Amino acid sequence: MLRLSSSFVRTLREDPADAEVASHKLLVRAGYIRRSAPGVYTWLPLGLKVLRKVEAIVRDEQDAIGGQELVFSALQPREPYEATGRWEEYGPQVFRLQDRRENDYLLAPTHEETFTLTVKDLYNSYKDLPAMLYQVQTKFRDEARPRAGLLRTREFIMKDAYSFDIDDAGLDVSYEKQRGAYQRTFDRLGLPIVICRADAGAMGGSRSEEFLHPTPVGEDTFVVSDGGYAANVEAVTTVAPPALDEAAIAGLPAMHVEDTPWASTIAALTDFSNEAFPGTGPITESGEWTRYEMLKHLAYLLTYPDGSTEPLVIALPGDREVDEKRLESAVAPAVAAPFTDADFAKHPVLTKGYIGPEGLGLESPSEIRYLVDPRVAPGTSWVAGAGEKDKHVYDLVFGRDFTADGTVEAAEVRDGDPAPDGSGPMRLTRGMEMGHIFQLGRKYAEALDLKVLDVNGKAVVVTMGSYGIGVTRAVAAIAELHHDDKGLVWPRQVAPADVHIMATGKTPEIFEEAERIGIELESRGLEVLYDDRPKVSPGVKFKDAELLGIPTSVVVGKGLATGVVEIRDRATGSIEEVAPEAAVEALVSAVRGA
Amino acid sequence: MLRLSSSFVRTLREDPADAEVASHKLLVRAGYIRRSAPGVYTWLPLGLKVLRKVEAIVRDEQDAIGGQELVFSALQPREPYEATGRWEEYGPQVFRLQDRRENDYLLAPTHEETFTLTVKDLYNSYKDLPAMLYQVQTKFRDEARPRAGLLRTREFIMKDAYSFDIDDAGLDVSYEKQRGAYQRTFDRLGLPIVICRADAGAMGGSRSEEFLHPTPVGEDTFVVSDGGYAANVEAVTTVAPPALDEAAIAGLPAMHVEDTPWASTIAALTDFSNEAFPGTGPITESGEWTRYEMLKHLAYLLTYPDGSTEPLVIALPGDREVDEKRLESAVAPAVAAPFTDADFAKHPVLTKGYIGPEGLGLESPSEIRYLVDPRVAPGTSWVAGAGEKDKHVYDLVFGRDFTADGTVEAAEVRDGDPAPDGSGPMRLTRGMEMGHIFQLGRKYAEALDLKVLDVNGKAVVVTMGSYGIGVTRAVAAIAELHHDDKGLVWPRQVAPADVHIMATGKTPEIFEEAERIGIELESRGLEVLYDDRPKVSPGVKFKDAELLGIPTSVVVGKGLATGVVEIRDRATGSIEEVAPEAAVEALVSAVRGA
Repeated sequence: MLRLSSSFVRTLREDPADAEVASHKLLVRAGYIRRSAPGVYTWLPLGLKVLRKVEAIVRDEQDAIGGQELVFSALQPREPYEATGRWEEYGPQVFRLQDRRENDYLLAPTHEETFTLTVKDLYNSYKDLPAMLYQVQTKFRDEARPRAGLLRTREFIMKDAYSFDIDDAGLDVSYEKQRGAYQRTFDRLGLPIVICRADAGAMGGSRSEEFLHPTPVGEDTFVVSDGGYAANVEAVTTVAPPALDEAAIAGLPAMHVEDTPWASTIAALTDFSNEAFPGTGPITESGEWTRYEMLKHLAYLLTYPDGSTEPLVIALPGDREVDEKRLESAVAPAVAAPFTDADFAKHPVLTKGYIGPEGLGLESPSEIRYLVDPRVAPGTSWVAGAGEKDKHVYDLVFGRDFTADGTVEAAEVRDGDPAPDGSGPMRLTRGMEMGHIFQLGRKYAEALDLKVLDVNGKAVVVTMGSYGIGVTRAVAAIAELHHDDKGLVWPRQVAPADVHIMATGKTPEIFEEAERIGIELESRGLEVLYDDRPKVSPGVKFKDAELLGIPTSVVVGKGLATGVVEIRDRATGSIEEVAPEAAVEALVSAVRGA
Repeated sequence: MLRLSSSFVRTLREDPADAEVASHKLLVRAGYIRRSAPGVYTWLPLGLKVLRKVEAIVRDEQDAIGGQELVFSALQPREPYEATGRWEEYGPQVFRLQDRRENDYLLAPTHEETFTLTVKDLYNSYKDLPAMLYQVQTKFRDEARPRAGLLRTREFIMKDAYSFDIDDAGLDVSYEKQRGAYQRTFDRLGLPIVICRADAGAMGGSRSEEFLHPTPVGEDTFVVSDGGYAANVEAVTTVAPPALDEAAIAGLPAMHVEDTPWASTIAALTDFSNEAFPGTGPITESGEWTRYEMLKHLAYLLTYPDGSTEPLVIALPGDREVDEKRLESAVAPAVAAPFTDADFAKHPVLTKGYIGPEGLGLESPSEIRYLVDPRVAPGTSWVAGAGEKDKHVYDLVFGRDFTADGTVEAAEVRDGDPAPDGSGPMRLTRGMEMGHIFQLGRKYAEALDLKVLDVNGKAVVVTMGSYGIGVTRAVAAIAELHHDDKGLVWPRQVAPADVHIMATGKTPEIFEEAERIGIELESRGLEVLYDDRPKVSPGVKFKDAELLGIPTSVVVGKGLATGVVEIRDRATGSIEEVAPEAAVEALVSAVRGA
């Protein structure tokens, strides 16, 4: 029995100054966590109880699909990460350090390399596979902007699992097992989830899904359609207009360069076009020119992990902005920065403000890498910069007048855009990534030479899957979803206690009865938090109980004299009066029956 | 049921190349751990089970004395460690790193500062005290020489607890509680312990005891006497001869300088003295000169954490060597390095090889700090360097002819030296530090301003105790103590499973019966490891079972045809034949009855 009088629990009436979101405010105010550095938290006793319960549910579902738990060290030597190229790729995201002999280490933000090497160390035959290994371990990531309490931290607990299979079919089976385990895990945690297609590009694999919890405080944007499509915005593919055939293209008006003074913005160019060439726009029925056709060209300098650089020009319909995260995902592991004046000076073929396919799209591959939005399909007609100041080209037809080195998914996704699978318009939704499963394939096994002998005695490269759950973040997400204006409202399965007993009054009988109820509840296997503070007013005890958020509480107070105690339900706010001798049974069924 | 056919367990026949001690060899060979970097290990599934059981016992005993668990981050910002002076004091022992904003962090090797600050954050009244807080957490230490597998690692799990009390009497009570909890913990872990007085100097506290487990592979040397004295060698105080009074001193022969050509070593000087002045030695009945009286002077340069330096001369009887660890402990937090020729050149008062009290011990404080062994008591008579080449002083009497700035405990402790409490001669013993409890007192509370209001409303500084157990090391110590030449022999309470079932044979009946026994044992609440590998010979299964070290095993093999299975006890080697239908009951009582 946790007695509040001697527990290391203190509630605060004021929100912490740095808190933006409810879970952060409430977890700090209720004494569950404390900040020790930016993005680094202490788990106080009540918080630790919640954390352990979340971990236990995560473990249980991993064990249920044959997962075997182990624990890797946080300190990891440079060499394996060097072998897979990630020592450099990680960039400033990772904490690096040296030991006293100046050997390089990192604090592992993820353990693909170590899992791979350990399986290589222990296993060597197809008979050893499939294998599913996992750990629940403290990870480190030097986030640029740690935020929102436990939602984005620099030291956090993750469950990371890896599957090892002899072939793709095996990987599919392992992947489906984890997919099921994740659904059951989040279900038990009380966290609604949308499973979204994710961009697996950066991790080098094939199938990849994120388990996103829809919440306004989420950092991720994802899309859903009524027809069941769901994807991370980075993974959305653009529906391109149908490509015209050669004959149709040949029938389109010929391209022509026009003077376009002052039309240096998309909006101005659109207005100019409607004034100068009214009724000839290629898209609308009325022939009105829209911002869509004003093909926007943007120049970026890509920097690769090895430090090398390369210019990139992308083109997209003028009514769309670039989505930085989609661009980032599209060019990873390179990092894209908009061209500076110095960059323009180095590449005179690009005229700032008037970039067009001139010098880029006439031959492929062009001198400067040139990627277009998928909406720039063969036969589509555009207006673009003519490569010199105050001039634009009209009726520029893709596939006839210019080509590109490929397409790029960098344009923003909008509410109402069609889902790529034809399942209807998409809605943009905010969410928080709670889990991620993906088929790594053979990337790490190849880099670190993880092979086993197959049934014919031939060495074959193992194929891997990777499956992560943010355990720390799950605690925050649960708190964020389950609270009201008075405090936390824990789901029973992760609450730090089953029953919160309040002794409100001054007579010894009240405290004796509260104690008796507590002891009986414990003997029935329930966890009890007992507010036994002798000189604290009922009002303060009620407020603290609401803040702490234990699902069921019992008030032993003045009513005791007339044979009544109060059972309260934190979630519904309902209050039920029962006789003291019936309290234990009523509490047990409130907890167990739920 | 852990089925060996699909478990991430592989045994090795060969010892790992870098292993020196049995626990290291066996834990690696049996597939409990793997090295991932020098002094950094992976816990494989079986090892993790042992670790979790050790942790659970440690937690249980902490909870039993009212300990409240929390968890601090490994990443800790520089500032609090700066405030207590430990950022510098730690030296190269600690892993330091910077985040992307170039803020300094360390990977906490211990959390005194954070515990102190957190209590300051939550508590403010004497009513909040006493408090006992603990964590079981991963710690980091950049050991110069990680060794012996899990015995000395750079990333390890510790239980560290801190007590907070309003006064010294309270601290004594908290200290005794932990002392009892530690005795019960090590008792339950099956680790014999000697509680030794420890030098608390470096930690700034008063009472301090180490829980040393006697073992030849231990790195610590401690002493015990038949009368019950036990101390870490660093904490042993020297028994000084009785001091003579002034009258007695006045009666001693006067000091005289003698030419001592070629007598540049203690041995040569002793021989010379016996030749030149036979029968006049001051200690032996026969008047023989011994190495004891040849007072050895050694010059060191002390370097303090802030980088400042200071010379130090120490004097000790010529038959004793300096014990580096005792010296280190005596001068901490400074570090002592023997004088170089350059140091001698800077301090011409010290003549290399002929240092004596000349210029040091004639007045106090002398120009150069001068400390003597406690055996150099008032009235004792010595031979020492005369401060110039080839000359020594005879009949040099302490308290008459020279004095010092104090005493120093730097001389080696020897088998047979008298215990300081008069409990008889001491024996030197090798041991491993498993736990350490000490009264920190107010050092950290003062540095970080942890005060509470006392009963009169006056702010008083809190007094603290610190209590650590090396959890990772405990696993190694248990393995080291409980093994034989065939493998590990786990005590039941920490074994990775209760029963190891071996199916040895080829008929389906054998595997079915083994499976049935396993399922029944699990339904009785036992943990089962089942060697169900189909094509592995009985010999290999027996060898693996011995290596893995589960306390009780059952062999279901050929005997099944004649109605017999074998129950084996790993520790005693006993084999008992029972009928298959009696096996479960026999196994349950073997496990439970133990």
